[in-house]
Amino acid sequence: MPETSPPIFQRLTLIGLGLIGSSVARAARENGIAAEIVASDASETVCARVAELGIADRVEPDLIRAVEGADCVMLCAPVGVLADIAAVIAPHLAQGCILTDVGSTKLSVVRDVGPVVPEGVHFVPAHPLAGTEFSGPDAGFAELFQGRYCLVVPPAGTNADAVARIVALWQRMGATVEEMEPAHHDRVLAVTSHLPHLIAFTICGTADDLADETKEEVLRFAASGFRDFTRIAASDPVMWRDIFLNNREALLEMLARFTEDAQAMAKAIRWGDAAYIEDKVLRGRKIRRSLIEIKQA
Amino acid sequence: MPETSPPIFQRLTLIGLGLIGSSVARAARENGIAAEIVASDASETVCARVAELGIADRVEPDLIRAVEGADCVMLCAPVGVLADIAAVIAPHLAQGCILTDVGSTKLSVVRDVGPVVPEGVHFVPAHPLAGTEFSGPDAGFAELFQGRYCLVVPPAGTNADAVARIVALWQRMGATVEEMEPAHHDRVLAVTSHLPHLIAFTICGTADDLADETKEEVLRFAASGFRDFTRIAASDPVMWRDIFLNNREALLEMLARFTEDAQAMAKAIRWGDAAYIEDKVLRGRKIRRSLIEIKQA
Repeated sequence: MPETSPPIFQRLTLIGLGLIGSSVARAARENGIAAEIVASDASETVCARVAELGIADRVEPDLIRAVEGADCVMLCAPVGVLADIAAVIAPHLAQGCILTDVGSTKLSVVRDVGPVVPEGVHFVPAHPLAGTEFSGPDAGFAELFQGRYCLVVPPAGTNADAVARIVALWQRMGATVEEMEPAHHDRVLAVTSHLPHLIAFTICGTADDLADETKEEVLRFAASGFRDFTRIAASDPVMWRDIFLNNREALLEMLARFTEDAQAMAKAIRWGDAAYIEDKVLRGRKIRRSLIEIKQA
Repeated sequence: MPETSPPIFQRLTLIGLGLIGSSVARAARENGIAAEIVASDASETVCARVAELGIADRVEPDLIRAVEGADCVMLCAPVGVLADIAAVIAPHLAQGCILTDVGSTKLSVVRDVGPVVPEGVHFVPAHPLAGTEFSGPDAGFAELFQGRYCLVVPPAGTNADAVARIVALWQRMGATVEEMEPAHHDRVLAVTSHLPHLIAFTICGTADDLADETKEEVLRFAASGFRDFTRIAASDPVMWRDIFLNNREALLEMLARFTEDAQAMAKAIRWGDAAYIEDKVLRGRKIRRSLIEIKQA
């Protein structure tokens, strides 16, 4: 363990031990982030598996006992259940405790969790932009956040020391941290992540609805482009259902913009507008090159 | 050179030395497919570069001289120019010559090239499902077709020996060959390749149209999903313009199906239909798993 700094927290409680939560458990231990790591999950199977894996110091299925005495509680469950979890744990959070999360939608978390946070508890929502197509406690790994962004969206007036400790937590796990307004976060993520996933899920369904013979061929000849779309379509269904429902406005706006653009392309194809099509393809190429230049591709 | 079979052709002429044509040149030589490889391209720069690379036995910018005496002529130019090329070369093709192509749309090739093919010349359209995001003669490589499919779509009544020789050519370069009807080919490719590319180009444009600050962030946070879409958006603009215009009916139908499905998803998100969304995400995951099972992912 090359990290010699003292732990940031005495007791870090993780609620939800899927891909992200179990990766935080591993990375927190590897980087000496907390003196004690407590894990809690609504699923008995997940709790048992986390105990077997030994990635937490203590597994505590009971939410209230899990958060008692913690100086940091991190919600790593799907965003659709955070309101319920927050209502249960709020009265039992210690004074000075930092409550944070890793949800992919931030206005909804501020809306659902913010109101129940007691006086003397610091609420610092965050979102690490990291993941794989796999899910569950076995899918996590300590290096998941290295070189990735983590967006921190503290409400106005949040205790600066609490924000600094959450920033330190993610930096020590290898992430680059940026602060952002929740509404802006949700728009940026709508176009960079939520819309691409919506499209990927949708095109899989479109292909699945084709007549049987064609469908079998869609799978066989997927390498010609379709395959790249299915990679991100393998993600966790409950997590994505909750993201779509909790970033409704921004996602529907981005889908509407995309649909207008796709219809304009359809019209150009129908009427043989070669210059329009070529221009759009060139823009795609330009964006791809920008990504390569800033080393995001 | 492990291949000890005799050459399939005495003189193979390649017209268009981009990614595919230059890969065929390299693979044909490496696998002893032709006693002589002649290369022709409309671009002087490309001709000069092919000569420098030494991947053809002879570079012949003049189309007519390039095809004279060839027993196989393979059109590797964008599908939009194949009609013009075919009209120029048709009267100069040798008796018994096999005329083939590598175009991504097949009804259009049958429509554009078929009528000018002289008596005694065999027309065997084909389409190797292979490519990268790069283009030009430097981007090609001999292994491009290994383990990939090549779809051969001979019109009814085509000379069986000519078909067998084109099949042998692709097999010797490492491809798995399947025969298909042109109309069926165009529908399968519309959904596996052309629609995914149309969507990828379009979403790049949608992102590019966002206000400047968000756009910069779209690039920085692309790893959250957007990036996977841009990979296939870097392809050659003229090639894709021509594909879209030459597979209009099938592509517009698949786009219409996809748009209906995306609108149904939008409605489910607007009205909070959690079960519908979860079901669609599960289908995406199922399709991805099918690809993994048949080793196409």
